Amino acid sequence: MYHTINDMNPKEITLLEGFWRNRNQLLADVIIPYQWDTLNNRTEGVPLSHAVENFRIAAKELQGIPGGTIFQDSDVAKWIEAASYSLMFQPNHALETSIDELVRLIEKSQHSNGYVNTFFTAKGIEQRWSDLEMGHELYCAGHLIEASIAYYQATGKRVLMDVMIRYANLIAEEFGPEEGKLHAYDGHPEIEIALYRLADASDDNRYRNLADYFMNIRGTVRNKNGSINADGARKPKSRWFESDYFLADKPIRSMTEVNGHAVRAMYLYAGMADQYRRTGEPELWEKLTALWNNLVQKRVYITGGIGSQSHGERFTVDYDLPPDRGYTETCASIGLVFWAWRMSCIDVDSRYADMIEKEMYNGALSGISLDGKAYFYVNPLEITPRIATFRQDMEHVLPHRAGWFDCACCPTNIARLIGSIGKYIYSFTDTHIFIHQYISSETEVPLGGQNITILQETNYPWNGEIRLGLQMQRETQATLSLRKPAWCDAWTLLINGTDWNAWYLEKGYITIDRKWVPSDTVVFRLEMPVKCIQADSRIQGYGGKAALMRGPLVYCLEEIDNGPQLQELLIDSKGNNKVEEGLIQSFPSTTILLDGYRETVRVDNLYEPMKQNERKQVQVKAIPYFQWGNRAKDQEMRVWFRIV
Amino acid sequence: MYHTINDMNPKEITLLEGFWRNRNQLLADVIIPYQWDTLNNRTEGVPLSHAVENFRIAAKELQGIPGGTIFQDSDVAKWIEAASYSLMFQPNHALETSIDELVRLIEKSQHSNGYVNTFFTAKGIEQRWSDLEMGHELYCAGHLIEASIAYYQATGKRVLMDVMIRYANLIAEEFGPEEGKLHAYDGHPEIEIALYRLADASDDNRYRNLADYFMNIRGTVRNKNGSINADGARKPKSRWFESDYFLADKPIRSMTEVNGHAVRAMYLYAGMADQYRRTGEPELWEKLTALWNNLVQKRVYITGGIGSQSHGERFTVDYDLPPDRGYTETCASIGLVFWAWRMSCIDVDSRYADMIEKEMYNGALSGISLDGKAYFYVNPLEITPRIATFRQDMEHVLPHRAGWFDCACCPTNIARLIGSIGKYIYSFTDTHIFIHQYISSETEVPLGGQNITILQETNYPWNGEIRLGLQMQRETQATLSLRKPAWCDAWTLLINGTDWNAWYLEKGYITIDRKWVPSDTVVFRLEMPVKCIQADSRIQGYGGKAALMRGPLVYCLEEIDNGPQLQELLIDSKGNNKVEEGLIQSFPSTTILLDGYRETVRVDNLYEPMKQNERKQVQVKAIPYFQWGNRAKDQEMRVWFRIV
Repeated sequence: MYHTINDMNPKEITLLEGFWRNRNQLLADVIIPYQWDTLNNRTEGVPLSHAVENFRIAAKELQGIPGGTIFQDSDVAKWIEAASYSLMFQPNHALETSIDELVRLIEKSQHSNGYVNTFFTAKGIEQRWSDLEMGHELYCAGHLIEASIAYYQATGKRVLMDVMIRYANLIAEEFGPEEGKLHAYDGHPEIEIALYRLADASDDNRYRNLADYFMNIRGTVRNKNGSINADGARKPKSRWFESDYFLADKPIRSMTEVNGHAVRAMYLYAGMADQYRRTGEPELWEKLTALWNNLVQKRVYITGGIGSQSHGERFTVDYDLPPDRGYTETCASIGLVFWAWRMSCIDVDSRYADMIEKEMYNGALSGISLDGKAYFYVNPLEITPRIATFRQDMEHVLPHRAGWFDCACCPTNIARLIGSIGKYIYSFTDTHIFIHQYISSETEVPLGGQNITILQETNYPWNGEIRLGLQMQRETQATLSLRKPAWCDAWTLLINGTDWNAWYLEKGYITIDRKWVPSDTVVFRLEMPVKCIQADSRIQGYGGKAALMRGPLVYCLEEIDNGPQLQELLIDSKGNNKVEEGLIQSFPSTTILLDGYRETVRVDNLYEPMKQNERKQVQVKAIPYFQWGNRAKDQEMRVWFRIV
Repeated sequence: MYHTINDMNPKEITLLEGFWRNRNQLLADVIIPYQWDTLNNRTEGVPLSHAVENFRIAAKELQGIPGGTIFQDSDVAKWIEAASYSLMFQPNHALETSIDELVRLIEKSQHSNGYVNTFFTAKGIEQRWSDLEMGHELYCAGHLIEASIAYYQATGKRVLMDVMIRYANLIAEEFGPEEGKLHAYDGHPEIEIALYRLADASDDNRYRNLADYFMNIRGTVRNKNGSINADGARKPKSRWFESDYFLADKPIRSMTEVNGHAVRAMYLYAGMADQYRRTGEPELWEKLTALWNNLVQKRVYITGGIGSQSHGERFTVDYDLPPDRGYTETCASIGLVFWAWRMSCIDVDSRYADMIEKEMYNGALSGISLDGKAYFYVNPLEITPRIATFRQDMEHVLPHRAGWFDCACCPTNIARLIGSIGKYIYSFTDTHIFIHQYISSETEVPLGGQNITILQETNYPWNGEIRLGLQMQRETQATLSLRKPAWCDAWTLLINGTDWNAWYLEKGYITIDRKWVPSDTVVFRLEMPVKCIQADSRIQGYGGKAALMRGPLVYCLEEIDNGPQLQELLIDSKGNNKVEEGLIQSFPSTTILLDGYRETVRVDNLYEPMKQNERKQVQVKAIPYFQWGNRAKDQEMRVWFRIV
């Protein structure tokens, strides 16, 4: 189990015509410029970000006090990281100049001891680390470290990485087990995965040791600081902001249930996996798999959404997955991709890449509009806007994507996921290539002492046919593993045009041991019938209901297609369905038309003795979940519907 | 429409063996003593009330500061009112002595200008009326006035009523349209209905005029005070505590939808009906019926519960009736009884007495345990304790009745409803007797110039047979109206043992015009089959589901009878059912056994393609909703279940 699977930098992947090239073109053309404008307070009608201005203030080029949340620096960091991926996708001199100017400001804002943080610079850096629970300093540091590595990888420019190395050195001087240092950790995990990444990028074990330290001390001492607002007012503690919220109620080696703030949880578990990849400590793997099992067996929505409660943006209890009041934050889904990928690099079991696929096409992707300029923080599985916009316990559920947020962690996070999507396609060892995701792309992978070129062509997820061309200099014995998605029951596999039956299934991967020769082609055809999906009956409110899937896509019903009062619709699970290709907002879509009924009960005084209600035959139209809310605002939508 | 129907004092009704005599015996034996102990801080394991102690402090017989909520005086008032009804039911010298001692304290706490309020006495009465929005002074005054009238009616003792008349006179001096007076009203309606009642009891129109003034100024000026806590700290306003919460966002004559804080709403609408009864102003009646229609057609639970949201304890929007997160406060259901009764005294339409019946046996009555010592503030229609006790948006939903509350408005309120239940049985004019509720009792009603005695015998609600004996001195032409409950489709009517067909239905009442002779007997037999009830499909989450009723009783499934995971149960709506009489906690019950199924779906990873699920045949047991939670704590319970 413990072995090293190599993963790739997005730079090594060239995306070709298809779903994700299209989204990366949008990233380059629209998302990155839109977010840059917004971070510079130049977008009208949205909450002001102040994020870039804060660095200008910290660099003493502008007078003022920082604005936005106490972790506003992280938005800048995640944007730099996303922009770096965009530069890998498509060079852009003007963009690179903008980033260089921003890096100059960050460098100028750095204190002589290495410290970087706009909020605590304004407060006075002697206040640093004074609110580790809610101050997010190490969290911001982590994102800036990740950004600096991405930018270095994209451009070869080291300035930002050097700035962050100086900062990391300060952190290493001030935190650690030694006497006189702070024995503490950040309330929001992130520094850990950043330090592991920095250790790899800089080949310096100090950062790995520091990351290990932060992982191991978590939950063993209580950070002594209380919660603090950006404006300095102390908030009272409540049940919801106790140590479990911070994933600090127990040491990581005692964790067996996914708990607390969902984003914090994902970043922490990703760090646990990073630690395991470097230590191979059996207890960590045991806990990682227990946590994973708890998540997938009891605490995740069908879309990959996680976090069933708004208050504390958190996990609750097993089988508590209300479709209309979950939190299902975009960032939590993205964090789950990070964790799942690390699990997959330890144990190549398709359940991890299956989860990444689920997020890529559902729970995470729904966080951004098709035009790239509007975002969901919360991704509900069901909404009735007239109710959700009134009720206090649904205040968190927006019925439309917003241009920005006061707390805008999600937009730049989804941008960096889109930009780095190539990273999740392949992994490899010296003699084995794993194909996890089906994305049109070209890359070179070292295999058996030579680099082989893999050309992958597919119209996935709209169509299940994947064509792989392997270019190599000389023939080579090697293993190729193709993920068989959990949703897939039937497929065909051809090599050089002929059915290939000498495969075997290993942990969900169709595995081919073979002497490959130059110009081998593999065609993998996954059948994608429309499926009605049912839920475990321990979940409340899903009985007698189904969701619709085709391939990796979860579908939904939207008011614009089906009229209001969606709860009155029933789908005939044995009826006909018709799959139609088309466009939604100029982006490809595949919609499904189904036989169904509308059961309308109108009662003068709400309740009446049951009778045989008339069911009017209707054709129900379902669209991919991630595409809802793009054609009109404030639409009713639902993923789970009654069936007959 | 506008005419005066006479109603009766509970004192005029003698309850005979049956459901409500039993509950009134419990009131006398257990509820009143238990609550008295609790109001005196003598009950262990419950939040301290301080309510009596506060009067001792205000009377300067004890040093200290008042404890509890700012409206703690109202708990004392409602207890006196309930205890007064109990004295009407059964004389009790010791109890009367306790009340007299309490009245002495209240009198001693009265300021020379007439003012009575323990909290503002402690603050200094120059602060009086300084927080009309949240201070509840006039609300407490109203409850004390109601108490004083009940105590006077029960015992003939005027001391407390005289105290309250002096206070009412102060209020009349300080509030009113005249220059120099306060042009304002209380944030929580109650003083209005109390003043109308005082005007009748004292035959003094000043109090009626003052009540009219408070009714009419409401929503036309904004009370200038902000919200204030008992500890004096000002709370920030939020969307949920704006003027609509206080039913003060518009004048009463502009109100057409039931809105805001549900208890405030009920007390206000009851006041509107009181005003109409005295003025006959058509616009008021038009608004009252619009409000009533909005409530019964769009905003009430099947149990009579009202208020769909915890935050603001309030109404939300049409057809928003979540079974697991409603507020459905006991006090709101009681308030709806008050309003409905007043509507019924204006327009004898069975829909009003139907609603009272619904509350008597369901939404209000579930607020008290069968042993009288535990209370629900919130009466959910569905609960899964392991989820409800975790989730923040269900914090208000207790899975068991509590011995008392920090804010303990409901226990004394349900006590006074039980004690005054006789009031709701009859109303009459000179030539017409209306029978609204079927309760074993004896009373005298003036009819056609003589008093006739009505003896009513029934085992209602367990059985639908009602026997009426009419005793009179001489024969008399008169009209007798018997409510045909909305749930009832089939009945028989006998007079002196013979089918009587010369009835006609008028607004839901089976109406008999006849020359009555001494010793006439009427037997009215209502059939009470078990019925599956469905809901209007505009309510979310009720599709494909049914609730169970028998007679006026709503039923529920409880874990103790059916095992956990109640959501897995389906009832066969065409299957057999068996009605069984028995006892629950020594109190009569009628349970229903039904053919049903348990559909258990176990999926390793929560979701799977639909298949024909096994449905295991089971017998499902349903009990009356008001009796749930009496045999074991923290049970799953649900009113709405799937049907086949």
